[in-house]
Amino acid sequence: MAAEQDPEARAAARPLLTDLYQATMALGYWRAGRARDAAEFELFFRRCPFGGAFALAAGLRDCVRFLRAFRLRDADVQFLASVLPPDTDPAFFEHLRALDCSEVTVRALPEGSLAFPGVPLLQVSGPLLVVQLLETPLLCLVSYASLVATNAARLRLIAGPEKRLLEMGLRRAQGPDGGLTASTYSYLGGFDSSSNVLAGQLRGVPVAGTLAHSFVTSFSGSEVPPDPMLAPAAGEGPGVDLAAKAQVWLEQVCAHLGLGVQEPHPGERAAFVAYALAFPRAFQGLLDTYSVWSGLPNFLAVALALGELGYRAVGVRLDSGDLLQQAQEIRKVFRAAAAQFQVPWLESVLIVVSNNIDEEALARLAQEGSEVNVIGIGTSVVTCPQQPSLGGVYKLVAVGGQPRMKLTEDPEKQTLPGSKAAFRLLGSDGSPLMDMLQLAEEPVPQAGQELRVWPPGAQEPCTVRPAQLCEPLPSLAESRALAQLSLSRLSPEHRRLRSPAQYQVVLSERLQALVNSLCAGQSP
Amino acid sequence: MAAEQDPEARAAARPLLTDLYQATMALGYWRAGRARDAAEFELFFRRCPFGGAFALAAGLRDCVRFLRAFRLRDADVQFLASVLPPDTDPAFFEHLRALDCSEVTVRALPEGSLAFPGVPLLQVSGPLLVVQLLETPLLCLVSYASLVATNAARLRLIAGPEKRLLEMGLRRAQGPDGGLTASTYSYLGGFDSSSNVLAGQLRGVPVAGTLAHSFVTSFSGSEVPPDPMLAPAAGEGPGVDLAAKAQVWLEQVCAHLGLGVQEPHPGERAAFVAYALAFPRAFQGLLDTYSVWSGLPNFLAVALALGELGYRAVGVRLDSGDLLQQAQEIRKVFRAAAAQFQVPWLESVLIVVSNNIDEEALARLAQEGSEVNVIGIGTSVVTCPQQPSLGGVYKLVAVGGQPRMKLTEDPEKQTLPGSKAAFRLLGSDGSPLMDMLQLAEEPVPQAGQELRVWPPGAQEPCTVRPAQLCEPLPSLAESRALAQLSLSRLSPEHRRLRSPAQYQVVLSERLQALVNSLCAGQSP
Repeated sequence: MAAEQDPEARAAARPLLTDLYQATMALGYWRAGRARDAAEFELFFRRCPFGGAFALAAGLRDCVRFLRAFRLRDADVQFLASVLPPDTDPAFFEHLRALDCSEVTVRALPEGSLAFPGVPLLQVSGPLLVVQLLETPLLCLVSYASLVATNAARLRLIAGPEKRLLEMGLRRAQGPDGGLTASTYSYLGGFDSSSNVLAGQLRGVPVAGTLAHSFVTSFSGSEVPPDPMLAPAAGEGPGVDLAAKAQVWLEQVCAHLGLGVQEPHPGERAAFVAYALAFPRAFQGLLDTYSVWSGLPNFLAVALALGELGYRAVGVRLDSGDLLQQAQEIRKVFRAAAAQFQVPWLESVLIVVSNNIDEEALARLAQEGSEVNVIGIGTSVVTCPQQPSLGGVYKLVAVGGQPRMKLTEDPEKQTLPGSKAAFRLLGSDGSPLMDMLQLAEEPVPQAGQELRVWPPGAQEPCTVRPAQLCEPLPSLAESRALAQLSLSRLSPEHRRLRSPAQYQVVLSERLQALVNSLCAGQSP
Repeated sequence: MAAEQDPEARAAARPLLTDLYQATMALGYWRAGRARDAAEFELFFRRCPFGGAFALAAGLRDCVRFLRAFRLRDADVQFLASVLPPDTDPAFFEHLRALDCSEVTVRALPEGSLAFPGVPLLQVSGPLLVVQLLETPLLCLVSYASLVATNAARLRLIAGPEKRLLEMGLRRAQGPDGGLTASTYSYLGGFDSSSNVLAGQLRGVPVAGTLAHSFVTSFSGSEVPPDPMLAPAAGEGPGVDLAAKAQVWLEQVCAHLGLGVQEPHPGERAAFVAYALAFPRAFQGLLDTYSVWSGLPNFLAVALALGELGYRAVGVRLDSGDLLQQAQEIRKVFRAAAAQFQVPWLESVLIVVSNNIDEEALARLAQEGSEVNVIGIGTSVVTCPQQPSLGGVYKLVAVGGQPRMKLTEDPEKQTLPGSKAAFRLLGSDGSPLMDMLQLAEEPVPQAGQELRVWPPGAQEPCTVRPAQLCEPLPSLAESRALAQLSLSRLSPEHRRLRSPAQYQVVLSERLQALVNSLCAGQSP
C-alpha cells in the first residue's frame, strides 16, 4: 500500500491497470508454451453511440504513450505473484519482468477521423501474451476518449459553427484523470475551450473562465480595497477610484432603466469593481447571484466606468432561469444603453450562458436570432448521459497466421475472423459511402475499380470505388481540425443525430466466404 | 507541453486540476485585499442520485491526500501567469507560490456514512483565496466517488447479501483514474471484488478474474503443450497427461449427456486443459465461446480429470444468452453429473455470469431459487448510466464570520447561510429519522431533548431526539463495513430505490430565522 502515499503514482495508465484475467490468461498461455505465438487483436465498437450514425476515433495519443512506457516493475510482478497460485513457476515472472512492447505493432485510425461499427480503431499484433495483457488499458484509453469526442462533435453540430462552446465539466468527471481526458477530447471533438487549467498546462487546450457566485456573495459592499485606483487604458493620465466612478454611473443607469438606485445589491457591485480592478481589459459580470435586475445595472455601471477609462467590458454570464429569453432582454438593454450613453461597443458584449445544458437545450440556445454568444457545458459533455460508455471491445482475430472467430450464443457478439485491412470508399463528391473490410492479404482496391462487397448479413453483394486511409499521428490541434473536416464530409443523412439510415460497413467476398466457412464449422 | 511526456504526471489531482475561474477569482480577491479573509464553504448535493432516498459519502481519503500535498510548483505558477493579464502584479504570483493548506480546516462525513441532500459532506474553512481554489478538485474527488459508492450500494441491496458481486468496468471508465476510482468506491459501496489489478495493488481491493473468449479462441486443439503432465493435488504419486485424461472423461460425459463425442470444440477443450494446467486449484471454464453445449461437456471433462487427481474445479462463467435460465440448466447438469460420477463437490461449482447487467437484470438474477452465485457488473456500476453525475456543489456560507447566501433566479439553487453543524436524529430503534442543520454556534442538542425543527419550506416546526456524528478517517475496509452498517440502519421506506418518501433534512429555528431575514433583504 506504499504507493497510496504517492499522489502522482495513482492514476496514469500503467501495465497493472488491467483486469486480473489478463494476468491469469498470460500464465495460461505461458504454461501452454504459447506466450510468443504471433497474435492479432482488433479494437472496435459494435454500434455508433447516442443513436447517431458516426463516431470519432480518439485516445490514440494516450495509447502510444502507454505502449512506449509499458514495462512491469518489480513491485508490479511481486503483486501479481501475490494473487497468482503460490506454486507458479518463477520463470513465468522472469518472462513478465522482461516484457515490453518492442515487438508490438499498432495500426490505428488517426485521432479525429470518422469511425464506424466493426471497423478497427486499433489493430494490435505481437506476441500473444503481451497483446492479451494490453486489452484492458487500450480499451480504457480509447473508449471514453472516442465517446466524449463524439459527444462533443454532436454538440458542435447542434450549436453550429458560430457559437463558442466552453467545456466546464471537470467537477462532474470520473475523478481527476476523467476530467483531463474529457477536457482534451471534447476540445478535439469541436469545443473551443475548457475551464480545466491542467488540460491547458498539459495538453495545450485553450482555457477560459471568469467568476463564480461565491466571488459575488463574498462581498457585502463594506469592504475597502487597499488600492481602489485604476489607471486609464492608454496608460497616461491620473488613475481614478473605480468604485466611486461606478457609483456615479449607477445613478445614470438606474435612471435609464427606471430602477431605484438602492435596488442593485451593493455587495455584488463591490465584487464587480474588485474583479474589474484585477481584470480591467477582461471584465465580465456574473448577473444572477441575487437577481438579473440587480446584476445587470451593476454590470453596466462598472462597464461604463471602465469605458470612461478606455477599457471595454468583455461579457456577462447567466447561470439560471430561461437563458434564451434573458439573453434577448439583456441584448435589448445593451443596445438601448449603447445608444443612450454613446458607447457602441456595449451592443456586442458577449452573453455567456450555462446551467445543465444538454442537446435539447443547446438546440434552443443556438436557434436563429439567439443573442447567446458563448455556451458553457459541463455534465452533458463529460458524462455522456445519453450513453455513458462506447462499449468498445478487443477481439482476437488471428493466431500464428490462422484466423480466429468467436461464435457464441449471441449473434451480435460474433466476431469477424482474420487479419484485416479497412478501406473507406468515397462517392464522387468526396463523402464516405461505406467502409470495406477485407483480409490483409487481399490486393489493395483501386479507385474507379468495381468491387463486389457484402453488407453484413446480406444475401447479395453490391458495388463502389475506394480511397485509402492511414495517416501519421497528428498533433491535438491537427486532430481537431481533422475531426471538423471529417464531419464536414459526412452526408447530411449520416450527420443526423438520430439516423434511420446507418452508415454501412460491408465485407469483401473472400472475407464473407471465410465467415461462411467458419460458421459451417470448417477449418479455414 | 513537456509534462505530456511523463506518463505518471498526467492524472492525479493537483492544484491546477481546477477551473480557470478559481484562478481569476483568486486574483480578484487578492487585488481586493481579501485573500486572507476567513471563509467557509460547504460541499453538498441537492438531490439523492438515481431517484432513491440515500447516498453514501465517499472520496474523503482522496481529498485528504490532495490537501496534504497541495502546493503550486513553479511551472504551475508560470502557466497561470501565461493565462492571466500580462500586467498582473508579480506579488500575486509570490502569494500563490507560498500557498498551502496548513490553515485550511476540513470537517467531513466519514467515508461510507449516509449523506442526504443539503447536509455538507465537507465543510472547508480557511483563507478565502485558498479555499476558493480548492472548489473544483474537491468536487471532482468527492462527487464521482460518492456517486459510484451509492450506485454500488444500490446494486448490493438488489443482489442481497449472498450473491458475490464483481466489479469489472475498468474498460468502460473515464480513463485510467476513472477506473481506479470506480473500482475503489464500488468496493466501498458493497461489491466483493474488482477485476482491476491496480486497485488491488494501490488500494487493497480484492481482485478476481479468470479467462476471456480470446483465450479460448486462441486454441485450435492442435497445439502441443511443452509439459502436459500434472501432479496429483496431494503432491504424491506420478503426474498424468491432463489432456489425455480429459479426453477419456469426455467420452463418459458425452454418453451421460447424450451428445456425440465430436460435438464439443477441441480448441475449447485444449484451452480449458491449458488453463487447468496453470490453475489446477482454481480451474474455471468460460462456457459460451462457441455454444454452452460445447463448453459444458468440455468443462466437465476437464473438471472430472482434475477431480481424479484430487483437485476441485471452482466455477463456470457465462457471458451471453439468458443467464438465469442457463444457470438453472447448468446446475441441473452439475447435480446429475455429481450423482452419476460420484463427485458431490460438482453440485456446488460456482456459476458466474456477466453481460451488461443493470439493476433490472440483477433483480432477476438475484431472485429466490436462482442458481447464479457470482455476478460481474461493468458498465452499470462504473458509468452510473441512470444518473452519471451526483451534481455536487461547493458554496460559500460565511466570510469573516458573516453568513453568506446566494438567492438567484432559481429557488433550488438558493443556499443556506452561515457556518453550520449537522446532527443525525435517530429514532428509538436506532434508525436515522432526519438530519438537522443548525448554526455552528447553537448549543449541541441532547438525546431525549425535545427540539423544534423546520422542514425546508414548511410553515410549522416538528420534534425529535439527536445523536452526534463525526468520526476519525477510517481505512477503506472500515469505510466499507460502515457503508453496509449505515445501509442496514436505514428504514425500509428510505431503502427503496424509488422512494416516494424522501428522507427529511430540516432546519433549526434559528437557522430558519436567518434564512427568513436574509430573504427579506435584512442584514444578519
